[in-house]
Amino acid sequence: MANSRFEYVKSFEQPDVLLPNTWIVVRIDGRGFHKLSDRYGFVKPNDRRALDLMNAAAVEVMKELPDLCVAYGVSDEYSFVFHPSCQLFERRNGKLVTTIVSTFTAHYIYLWNTYFPDTPLQPPYLPSFDGRAVIYPTTGILRDYMSWRQVDCHINNLYNTTFWAMVQQGGINNTDAELELKGTVSSDKNEILFSRYGINYNNEDEMYKKGSVVYRQYQLEEPKSKPASGHEDESTPISEKQPSKSQQEKLRKLRRKAQVVVEHVDIIKDDFWERRPWILSNKPGKLPAEADV
Amino acid sequence: MANSRFEYVKSFEQPDVLLPNTWIVVRIDGRGFHKLSDRYGFVKPNDRRALDLMNAAAVEVMKELPDLCVAYGVSDEYSFVFHPSCQLFERRNGKLVTTIVSTFTAHYIYLWNTYFPDTPLQPPYLPSFDGRAVIYPTTGILRDYMSWRQVDCHINNLYNTTFWAMVQQGGINNTDAELELKGTVSSDKNEILFSRYGINYNNEDEMYKKGSVVYRQYQLEEPKSKPASGHEDESTPISEKQPSKSQQEKLRKLRRKAQVVVEHVDIIKDDFWERRPWILSNKPGKLPAEADV
Amino acid sequence: MANSRFEYVKSFEQPDVLLPNTWIVVRIDGRGFHKLSDRYGFVKPNDRRALDLMNAAAVEVMKELPDLCVAYGVSDEYSFVFHPSCQLFERRNGKLVTTIVSTFTAHYIYLWNTYFPDTPLQPPYLPSFDGRAVIYPTTGILRDYMSWRQVDCHINNLYNTTFWAMVQQGGINNTDAELELKGTVSSDKNEILFSRYGINYNNEDEMYKKGSVVYRQYQLEEPKSKPASGHEDESTPISEKQPSKSQQEKLRKLRRKAQVVVEHVDIIKDDFWERRPWILSNKPGKLPAEADV
Amino acid sequence: MANSRFEYVKSFEQPDVLLPNTWIVVRIDGRGFHKLSDRYGFVKPNDRRALDLMNAAAVEVMKELPDLCVAYGVSDEYSFVFHPSCQLFERRNGKLVTTIVSTFTAHYIYLWNTYFPDTPLQPPYLPSFDGRAVIYPTTGILRDYMSWRQVDCHINNLYNTTFWAMVQQGGINNTDAELELKGTVSSDKNEILFSRYGINYNNEDEMYKKGSVVYRQYQLEEPKSKPASGHEDESTPISEKQPSKSQQEKLRKLRRKAQVVVEHVDIIKDDFWERRPWILSNKPGKLPAEADV
Repeated sequence: MANSRFEYVKSFEQPDVLLPNTWIVVRIDGRGFHKLSDRYGFVKPNDRRALDLMNAAAVEVMKELPDLCVAYGVSDEYSFVFHPSCQLFERRNGKLVTTIVSTFTAHYIYLWNTYFPDTPLQPPYLPSFDGRAVIYPTTGILRDYMSWRQVDCHINNLYNTTFWAMVQQGGINNTDAELELKGTVSSDKNEILFSRYGINYNNEDEMYKKGSVVYRQYQLEEPKSKPASGHEDESTPISEKQPSKSQQEKLRKLRRKAQVVVEHVDIIKDDFWERRPWILSNKPGKLPAEADV
Repeated sequence: MANSRFEYVKSFEQPDVLLPNTWIVVRIDGRGFHKLSDRYGFVKPNDRRALDLMNAAAVEVMKELPDLCVAYGVSDEYSFVFHPSCQLFERRNGKLVTTIVSTFTAHYIYLWNTYFPDTPLQPPYLPSFDGRAVIYPTTGILRDYMSWRQVDCHINNLYNTTFWAMVQQGGINNTDAELELKGTVSSDKNEILFSRYGINYNNEDEMYKKGSVVYRQYQLEEPKSKPASGHEDESTPISEKQPSKSQQEKLRKLRRKAQVVVEHVDIIKDDFWERRPWILSNKPGKLPAEADV
Repeated sequence: MANSRFEYVKSFEQPDVLLPNTWIVVRIDGRGFHKLSDRYGFVKPNDRRALDLMNAAAVEVMKELPDLCVAYGVSDEYSFVFHPSCQLFERRNGKLVTTIVSTFTAHYIYLWNTYFPDTPLQPPYLPSFDGRAVIYPTTGILRDYMSWRQVDCHINNLYNTTFWAMVQQGGINNTDAELELKGTVSSDKNEILFSRYGINYNNEDEMYKKGSVVYRQYQLEEPKSKPASGHEDESTPISEKQPSKSQQEKLRKLRRKAQVVVEHVDIIKDDFWERRPWILSNKPGKLPAEADV
Repeated sequence: MANSRFEYVKSFEQPDVLLPNTWIVVRIDGRGFHKLSDRYGFVKPNDRRALDLMNAAAVEVMKELPDLCVAYGVSDEYSFVFHPSCQLFERRNGKLVTTIVSTFTAHYIYLWNTYFPDTPLQPPYLPSFDGRAVIYPTTGILRDYMSWRQVDCHINNLYNTTFWAMVQQGGINNTDAELELKGTVSSDKNEILFSRYGINYNNEDEMYKKGSVVYRQYQLEEPKSKPASGHEDESTPISEKQPSKSQQEKLRKLRRKAQVVVEHVDIIKDDFWERRPWILSNKPGKLPAEADV
């Protein structure tokens, strides 16, 4: 029985290959996590269990997809970054995004009980995530994207920390707290925290203030005198940079050997990137073990 | 601290709204399920537990997204169908696809233990799914898409049933079985099954032969003498059909009341669609309870 | 000398194939024609020479591209319509649009002297056009598109006729005329025209009131008692409708034999389409000559 | 009379904004110029009149669109380049491409009689052009694109020069000439030209060998010791580079003052770009007149 009579419907599928030689960022977001965090009793302003669970799921995604260079998470969102030379799934948008969303979701659900041992999932109210891919043509702009997310983390966390201090410690109701914070700048919030509640924002948990950056760990390098711009690569024609299928597979194997780590550090300044040049260059560094020898 | 310096990176996000007034099919596929089915010892050619789990996850997706009209599943794939009038997420491709992929994955992982009580998941080897959206401009072509999947189900299941009978009952090795089946037509395979292994393919499980169609159940209607083409709608300008936000919400509530059922029936012929006109018309029918009164 | 070192740049070209089985409308618009009409002294509110030139260029486009079904022009814009079964240039968006824009421009420039014998072109101020393709999934929506343009023609022409009567015959300055017309409805404008300037709008030139519809002429048919919806086609799978390459070529030859005509008639009501069923069905009718026999 | 009933058809228009901060190349090609060159008796292998006409039309396009940085033409094709910071028409693909195609066509048709005084156009066989936009993420790749076209020019011209020498001077028929040239490399063709027909390919017209590069002329600069990569810009966030509307207008005015020149020089090596840094930097240089002072 031939299927040819109906097979023409395949012709309606449209290609969605992402422009070559551009950075690919897949950002996923929790769906309806405001409501969900109430249902499952997330601690405000930050629930360490929930954040650790996000990070654990992100680490699994990084391990499963060695083509990923780096990821950055804050609150219920995570950004995963593929290098411009990435050829995974022929750079098909839908395939890349859904694979990350599904893999992340699978581990998030699977690991839930580990991080919330006393709070079982209540179907049908299961956590889920949506996602999208965005491409960036230069390393400078990719760096700006990462900075954007980390600045956002800072802005939101300072706000939330202050808001919940006012509500939880100050006994102010939500509306009044919101009203009072309207129009305040960072220094105002720092002042409220310190003078009223004795909280020094600088002493807050680094994970809450900086978010979480996930990457493969190699031996750190000395920052160069002249900041490594990460841009020199871009003058090289992509034809010379695009690794062959076997080179890609070799690179994947190398990357699988590296440990995936989660850190809570500044990724806006150059230092983070200069000491970990493998993240933007996509060339695996020296494994710490090798370095020790 | 203003975030405006980096916010320009948002301008790189590109719109992905699907053409209005077209059918949207989101098809998801298990990632690497060949390997996965070996790891978790799926029964060949069909593992009822695995198929029941697929169907259970699909039912949850249908319940969570009342905008969905119908879904069809076979093996490790599932197609979810939105009506041309669907306005969910402003018809954004990425949002629709990732929401379905993530919701499906979440329930699949969560329900795993129910359907595979003796086969716990083995991280990091968790099941996951990718997905894509395709749009179809007319009801006729949407029907052809559904037929395409069901014909594919039939072709694959007849092949697999024969192949595994030869291997499991006939003791033939995989390569030889494959070789012998090469170039055979349906009648040949039916003959092999019956004459050699005493299997009447017609008596095989309907779920294996027909796949699973999932939809909201209302009171069945009498087929009209003249086949309902489902096309008359299309002459109505979409402007008149597009429900307002409040109408959409009302429709969603109505749909939530209907029971989501799973059936294993022919969806190629007109009968299925004629008796369930609400699926293609997107107008909820009479609830069975109402009908009884 | 091999070119392979640089050829990778071709991989940056992205596909732009339009969804199969949808109506394709290519609309072109004069660039900066407000200024241009001043420079070349176009008569207000309608310059017959300029409109005749638009129509003449459109006729040439129709002749050169027999795949086109129909075109509709008003002011400095023209819409060209391809049938859902159109396979020209594999339905590549850019190719279809630029071919029409360039062919139209070439004939417009070439024919300028014929229609403006006393007003030579003044380089570098040459007329030019931009364009875009839009796809429509059903015949009903395509009809609505055509109606939209003709209603727009009517609205603009009634406004312009009234405005210029006030300015040219009434000696009112532009700003005052604009101010007075603000908020008026059709009947108000008809009244101004008739009572103040003795103009019965109904007697205005049909071309100005209705715009210009361009199509291949065959023997008119009797309207059916039941309005031909043009939708019956859509239930037929596109696989059966898509003509082969040789059938396409044969159809093109047939169409080339038909005369391309320009009319100024109502295209909102069904009558126009019912009597010329070949326009929407894409099946050439009887040539008038044949009919005479 | 309100048009709202039909206006919903506008919602089918889909956005086509090109990714920010990328080079935009619009390449146009003569439609059916093989046939056309026969009809109008173009001289083989190169018709100076036809190439001069192409260049003249390209110069007009450059003048009309001061946002263009550079253009490169060979045979019946022309590539026009917009800088990554270009905001013209909000970077809408269709608008950019059709504007260039139409403007080019208009001038080509208008100027025909100047370059072909003895060969009037024969309607309906008018020259026309199609076009497409491609975006390139880095300056290195844009340079490779330009090199690709110039290498192509060389390869084709050497072939054509040899082929037509064999046919025109050697009396060999087309098929035999084609056959003999199959598989030959550059040195073979040079040898055939020189030994058989006394033609030193190096002495051929530079326009034929190198194609034509069109740009705004400013005072040439000394090449720097370290090759200017044109890449330093890319580390600058686009937010800081994107000129405001008024800055854009000011830049346009400045550019309009520069003379648009046509040259036939090597654009593969760095020298051309280093001495004319304004082309890739998009910052107008010193006008020659200013320099003289």
